[in-house]
Amino acid sequence: MPDVSRADLLLPAEPTQRAIARELYSLVADRPLISPHGHVDPGVLADDAPFPDPARLLVVPDHYLTRMLFSQGVPPAELGVPSVDGSPVEADGRQIWRRFARHWHLFRGTPSRLWLELTFRDVFGVHTALSPATADRVYDEIADRLAEPAFRPRALFERFNIEVLATTESPLDDLDRHAKLAADGWGGPGGRVITTFRPDNVVDMEFDGWRTNVERLAEVAGEDTGTYPGFLAALRQRRAAFVAAGATSSDHGHPTARTLALTDREAADLYERGLRGTADAADAEAFRAHMLLQFARMSVEDGLVLQLHPGAVRNHNRRLHARHGRDVGGDVAQATEYVHALAPLLDAFGNDPRLRLVLYTLDEYTFTRELAPLAGGYTAVYLGAPWWFLDSPEVLRRFREAVTETAGFYNTAGFVDDTRAFCSIPVRHEVARRIDAGYLARLVAEGRLPLDDAAETVVDLAYHLPKRVFRLDRAGGDA
Amino acid sequence: MPDVSRADLLLPAEPTQRAIARELYSLVADRPLISPHGHVDPGVLADDAPFPDPARLLVVPDHYLTRMLFSQGVPPAELGVPSVDGSPVEADGRQIWRRFARHWHLFRGTPSRLWLELTFRDVFGVHTALSPATADRVYDEIADRLAEPAFRPRALFERFNIEVLATTESPLDDLDRHAKLAADGWGGPGGRVITTFRPDNVVDMEFDGWRTNVERLAEVAGEDTGTYPGFLAALRQRRAAFVAAGATSSDHGHPTARTLALTDREAADLYERGLRGTADAADAEAFRAHMLLQFARMSVEDGLVLQLHPGAVRNHNRRLHARHGRDVGGDVAQATEYVHALAPLLDAFGNDPRLRLVLYTLDEYTFTRELAPLAGGYTAVYLGAPWWFLDSPEVLRRFREAVTETAGFYNTAGFVDDTRAFCSIPVRHEVARRIDAGYLARLVAEGRLPLDDAAETVVDLAYHLPKRVFRLDRAGGDA
Amino acid sequence: MPDVSRADLLLPAEPTQRAIARELYSLVADRPLISPHGHVDPGVLADDAPFPDPARLLVVPDHYLTRMLFSQGVPPAELGVPSVDGSPVEADGRQIWRRFARHWHLFRGTPSRLWLELTFRDVFGVHTALSPATADRVYDEIADRLAEPAFRPRALFERFNIEVLATTESPLDDLDRHAKLAADGWGGPGGRVITTFRPDNVVDMEFDGWRTNVERLAEVAGEDTGTYPGFLAALRQRRAAFVAAGATSSDHGHPTARTLALTDREAADLYERGLRGTADAADAEAFRAHMLLQFARMSVEDGLVLQLHPGAVRNHNRRLHARHGRDVGGDVAQATEYVHALAPLLDAFGNDPRLRLVLYTLDEYTFTRELAPLAGGYTAVYLGAPWWFLDSPEVLRRFREAVTETAGFYNTAGFVDDTRAFCSIPVRHEVARRIDAGYLARLVAEGRLPLDDAAETVVDLAYHLPKRVFRLDRAGGDA
Repeated sequence: MPDVSRADLLLPAEPTQRAIARELYSLVADRPLISPHGHVDPGVLADDAPFPDPARLLVVPDHYLTRMLFSQGVPPAELGVPSVDGSPVEADGRQIWRRFARHWHLFRGTPSRLWLELTFRDVFGVHTALSPATADRVYDEIADRLAEPAFRPRALFERFNIEVLATTESPLDDLDRHAKLAADGWGGPGGRVITTFRPDNVVDMEFDGWRTNVERLAEVAGEDTGTYPGFLAALRQRRAAFVAAGATSSDHGHPTARTLALTDREAADLYERGLRGTADAADAEAFRAHMLLQFARMSVEDGLVLQLHPGAVRNHNRRLHARHGRDVGGDVAQATEYVHALAPLLDAFGNDPRLRLVLYTLDEYTFTRELAPLAGGYTAVYLGAPWWFLDSPEVLRRFREAVTETAGFYNTAGFVDDTRAFCSIPVRHEVARRIDAGYLARLVAEGRLPLDDAAETVVDLAYHLPKRVFRLDRAGGDA
Repeated sequence: MPDVSRADLLLPAEPTQRAIARELYSLVADRPLISPHGHVDPGVLADDAPFPDPARLLVVPDHYLTRMLFSQGVPPAELGVPSVDGSPVEADGRQIWRRFARHWHLFRGTPSRLWLELTFRDVFGVHTALSPATADRVYDEIADRLAEPAFRPRALFERFNIEVLATTESPLDDLDRHAKLAADGWGGPGGRVITTFRPDNVVDMEFDGWRTNVERLAEVAGEDTGTYPGFLAALRQRRAAFVAAGATSSDHGHPTARTLALTDREAADLYERGLRGTADAADAEAFRAHMLLQFARMSVEDGLVLQLHPGAVRNHNRRLHARHGRDVGGDVAQATEYVHALAPLLDAFGNDPRLRLVLYTLDEYTFTRELAPLAGGYTAVYLGAPWWFLDSPEVLRRFREAVTETAGFYNTAGFVDDTRAFCSIPVRHEVARRIDAGYLARLVAEGRLPLDDAAETVVDLAYHLPKRVFRLDRAGGDA
Repeated sequence: MPDVSRADLLLPAEPTQRAIARELYSLVADRPLISPHGHVDPGVLADDAPFPDPARLLVVPDHYLTRMLFSQGVPPAELGVPSVDGSPVEADGRQIWRRFARHWHLFRGTPSRLWLELTFRDVFGVHTALSPATADRVYDEIADRLAEPAFRPRALFERFNIEVLATTESPLDDLDRHAKLAADGWGGPGGRVITTFRPDNVVDMEFDGWRTNVERLAEVAGEDTGTYPGFLAALRQRRAAFVAAGATSSDHGHPTARTLALTDREAADLYERGLRGTADAADAEAFRAHMLLQFARMSVEDGLVLQLHPGAVRNHNRRLHARHGRDVGGDVAQATEYVHALAPLLDAFGNDPRLRLVLYTLDEYTFTRELAPLAGGYTAVYLGAPWWFLDSPEVLRRFREAVTETAGFYNTAGFVDDTRAFCSIPVRHEVARRIDAGYLARLVAEGRLPLDDAAETVVDLAYHLPKRVFRLDRAGGDA
């Protein structure tokens, strides 16, 4: 572990700023966690079953870890990552863990190391520093904890002080896990665990199995998706079901931020070409762009906050995709244009107070040029936290340094942890809170913000803003 | 106000650097202000009438303020921003001020807050911190000052220690305000208030009313603008008139940095298509690009420094533009390419010592890649200060950190305040001088620059460089 | 010289971090220099003749210096830069030196100043600060040293503690200088001076004299380059000769990072169009892109590490190029896209452990968006050090701050000095080592990395990583 006191982790080293930052951080250290966007399996909390072994819990599903080891020559199969064709992969958790520990040095300076170290220490009470030599000891200590009732998901949820956690489901999901949670008093509108409407797999014609998905959408929604109006009706039906299950937002992962205002006739033509299998890449892009604008329209009607995550190039590493499928580390990022791409949507709804459009990016080289001016110039636009590769101490800091001067703090939407890894939720929020405290401390130390304003702001960023922007303050939760 | 001594505002918090920065800043704190580019109405100084009420002086015309409030749902009409169709807007200055004060927290961390706080304090002697509760008190204190003779424009000009202030006029302007200033001993070549030649409204076919403007140009210049040669002659005539009124530079706000060397015949064809109303967007862009190169040619002849401000997407927020017109906060920025765009102009005049081309940007992601190599590689090119959304402490610092290593200090043109808000001129210069002092202090503290060189440099950046680059050292002014 | 102790040069000013950085730097200060990429003339070491006068050694060939002076109006001819047409240029070294010294202030804040100051002091023992007044004294002191045997190239090589130095040669080079070095026990595989295979002048149809070069390639390789297969065979032959002369890498300077998988037939067609003189710019780009993929294939076979340097716009300053030719300061940079451009190459070989692809950039605005995700996601990809305009303290620091969080340290390839200026090699490595020490010190001070890990890492970055990535650990050299 670091040679710095736990209390000062990530705070500026310079003593004046550190002292201010420590004071600011103390105001948010114990605030409940608002987690309006993430990828925890709702079954984990619905079933409340014990977690599997440490490797399966912490290594195998974490593409940050497996891609780094892959980049240095360790095949994902040796880390237990399931293969597409069912060919055997490492099944022994301890072996996976040892391999991982052998390459622990690769993670120096990365958020992955920080997240894991603090998870070991704060969640599992393991104070042994991970190394090739200590791999077994750390594994055993974590495994022991996982067997205890206090380490079941719901117990951890309480200990983590999570006020609300949003998972992410596709419109094809019947939301039965969320129904179970609601029945147990954990879910539903205003509940502790809610869902998020993520329609990419029925909207993106280039998604694997899109046509099958559209057929399944018909079944789950009870609408005829053989026509474009029926498709829209099915989406509306599923949004209503998601709202009933507690959703306050939708989430859209597109290659670009492009939006487009097609006529119904044009949209129907595209949709039909898609169903016939004659749509090309430009058609798929146009349909995605058109649907974003439709989802903005639906958001104006039903109040779901619209989250847009553009800029990922999915499955860029084709061999990795072929062997191990999606979401195992084969994605990279690309340059993303917002100003012209979003113009059609913003012309239609950008000044509508009923719309909340939360923009994320994998391209930090849009912070001052595009994102901050848009957020500071349209009523509907909020900036989401730096995402994925950018969810890191350095970028969280650069984000504030870049966008605050034009968009202020109150056109940002607070932190989203975006995590699949349930146990890392607390540390991810802690990192964001500490970085914000450090940034605000610099403003105070340079005379740019009075301490009392900084104190109010740090709490707003950590707690009130995400709650307000994601419309989580409508039901339940103390403030 | 900040919890830091006024003397240390914006200086690095680390004590060694702060001490050096304080020493460096003391060398420029009292230097006269050189303001070679801005948008103060020359009538303000020609007439020397008292300023209006605090809201009309400080809030209504400041698009930084009205756009931020608009982004959080406050309609510009409620802030007194005039409407295009004449529909009523808030007329009560005190009500506007109260609304503004109610949203003061939105400006935390922004330059707008810094500029206003220091304007309140240093210009108006108001030490009450603005808040919803103190809105009326601050309003009354400022209003009282504004009624005093010492707060008339010319008195403030003297108190601000402005050595020279350039306003910006279109070729259609008859420069009567500048004639009045000259008659009063305030204007003319080498005077305290001079003009700048800004021809966008007669060069950009996409400008509202372009054809009408070209007709008016004929009248004011006494040339036949019905032909391209006549159009060029009219521009030359107006440039001569601007030079006679003291102008030392022209200013060009284009969507892109594109330049183009058309033949006279090609240019005439474009121009005629424009007059006939058959020019398309590509024609308009080509004509702008061609005219930039023509203006460089004219600059070589008449010595006007050529300032290029590319990258703004005007009126992106179309509803705002429709209701309230230009320059009320509806503009955003876009990616800007310089290297290929400027090649035609640089091929023609880039190494000509008679040309000074000052490049600005709204796209900081060109600093090291494009701007610094161009400025460090062509005789004619100078880098202007970070502009508009980028005129902020963080970006001023990043600008120096990015461009100095390739372009040095002496291929930059010093600070331009670019302000419409007369009372904010001193604080804008103070911010730039403090940030430069802090940057230089870091170089000194890291052993990268001796203190005596830093001392000379900080004065050059604040005073000598803008004077030299903008050719303000030819007549009048002490050095 | 700076007002800071020599020991603390470039280290963070804040005392806690400075103390840690000093400790970290002490671990690498005396490590041998690994210089796997540069442009020293191998004849310098093969002949071991005394260096010429100070101006010819340090000013005339350094385009960083001559371009800066040119940007402020000093013609290269007055600095002794040879003219293309043979028209006379300044021949008096002392006059050149004086002119240079007169403009020494232009270099404040630049790496050039830092490199030169430390070269004067540490290499030549000159403690007089350069200024217009001291120009002659500094010139004389350096000239005196250059006359001493201890300042011959090989003696300096030993004093500089260079373990291995790679020069760069074209396939047309007969490598006779390297043969001489090998005969003297200085060269050959595993030797102290090795070569690098740089085929741009026979691969890039837009290179001046390409067709002549291809003919000369036939002669030197003993293959018929009149056909595409013969061209490939000639390149393979030359690669084998370079490997025999000690090369462990190839180097490719392309305008873009584009790669392309053409069929043999398509490639042959392009090649033949090139030979007939009917290839256009798109053909030339396609052929370069195709050849990059061929070179990756050859690297898989023969083990040469493939270095790609995209993004330079060569000879942008056309007048400078016309008067003084290539490499005299007329180049600038352009935006560079990697993610889509490299996909064909990465599809073919990106996960092949036999390939090492080292990516450089002149576009720092790809660090987090493109370069770090690619390096952290492909087995073959390593990130090279910031290059050319970006080889500077600020960018070296920003590079680590940007890429480490996604790619870690171990997907970077360590520092390459890329220098033509033999005497500046030590200071260039020192700067990189000091910046890395400072960056690591911040991680330690913020609790993000334990000191012992930082200590191991700083040595890896300075010494072990470049040695390993450039395959210099296969023969000779202590570790």
